[in-house]
Amino acid sequence: MSRHFQRDLESLQADILAMAAAVQAAVHGAIRALRTKDAALARQVIAGDAEIDRQENQVEEECLKLLALYQPVASDLRRITAILKINTDLERMADLAVDIAQRALHLGELAPIPFPERLQAMADVTAGMVRQSLEAFVAADAHKARLVWRRDDEVDGWNAEVIGELLAAMRACPEQIEPALSLFSAVRHLERVADHATNIAEEVIYLVEGQIVRHHPDAIEEGGPRPPDE
Amino acid sequence: MSRHFQRDLESLQADILAMAAAVQAAVHGAIRALRTKDAALARQVIAGDAEIDRQENQVEEECLKLLALYQPVASDLRRITAILKINTDLERMADLAVDIAQRALHLGELAPIPFPERLQAMADVTAGMVRQSLEAFVAADAHKARLVWRRDDEVDGWNAEVIGELLAAMRACPEQIEPALSLFSAVRHLERVADHATNIAEEVIYLVEGQIVRHHPDAIEEGGPRPPDE
Repeated sequence: MSRHFQRDLESLQADILAMAAAVQAAVHGAIRALRTKDAALARQVIAGDAEIDRQENQVEEECLKLLALYQPVASDLRRITAILKINTDLERMADLAVDIAQRALHLGELAPIPFPERLQAMADVTAGMVRQSLEAFVAADAHKARLVWRRDDEVDGWNAEVIGELLAAMRACPEQIEPALSLFSAVRHLERVADHATNIAEEVIYLVEGQIVRHHPDAIEEGGPRPPDE
Repeated sequence: MSRHFQRDLESLQADILAMAAAVQAAVHGAIRALRTKDAALARQVIAGDAEIDRQENQVEEECLKLLALYQPVASDLRRITAILKINTDLERMADLAVDIAQRALHLGELAPIPFPERLQAMADVTAGMVRQSLEAFVAADAHKARLVWRRDDEVDGWNAEVIGELLAAMRACPEQIEPALSLFSAVRHLERVADHATNIAEEVIYLVEGQIVRHHPDAIEEGGPRPPDE
């Protein structure tokens, strides 16, 4: 591929990484706003989404321009189609951060409800998955991507526990029904953030190894040993 | 473009339409299972997802093959990248149908709860959006795609009303808390099905007009008059 292609590809990668940094900040901000009921922070996350939408459109246009102009093949083609898909996942993560921020605002108007301890654990794992999936993408690191892939089950486990906790709160006290329902929505949004991080991890594995691991639970074990500490 | 490209593109379109038909059947089946608590139908929807996953992988491989083999430009390139994105939306719709079917199974095990009337209205609008978005894609009909785009607000309106109804049921009777929460989840899944139908509609508009309407509420009015009966 030409030097021009390499230069444009590097510029595209810089753009998607800038967008990824903004999305990661939005997810972290939304989680913090939910826990602390910080309305100003929640509004900041919501207001920041327009810029992420603009970045998504720009990355998509750049991808199509590169495909049309240079007609790349093999790994170059795969990299651009992976960026197209990761772009979509990033933008939807940002939308979910907005949804969580809106729950934070809504919770601020309702009867106070204790923030479930396990929700914090779930949020920490999810934020870690978002960070790791993007690091895996930057470094083209399939091993790190596999770590993300495996943590999705952990999030699903926390998810079930938090929902049990919220159900108990609702049954114990009718005034807690509405705030618990709002937290329940936030939990579901968080679970979807983790799903998108998993999608990105799958794209990275595909990018590095040319192997579609999506819908192939067995494939996740191939090529990468299970890490010793998990 | 060569005759070979046209032939392969037609085969790709036939494959994604076959997948779209399966996804539409899954969404309809899941909604019916939820309303009727038909466990056999719910299990059928869940079991059918593996075949849709296989179809998704196949469509993606075909898209990449066409890009690499024929290096299409302009509208041909746009068509293939649109199919890549619609492929992802279809697969996620099928996953949501599975989620709804699981809620149907879960509801069958809990205290009976009346099926909210407005949920049926919401389900009908959503199923219509899924059908119309796929028809718009098949016919490359940007006008029909705009109709889908506009109906998303209608779904969001029903969504808020159904949630109000479920909150009232929970407050009135503690035994209804768990089944109402299960219906609440199904409502959120349904709302996301409508979001994916909207994404497909946006892709169709982009495909036909080369205009990104995503994140541009004003753009939806251009090029297509408001239909008289809406």
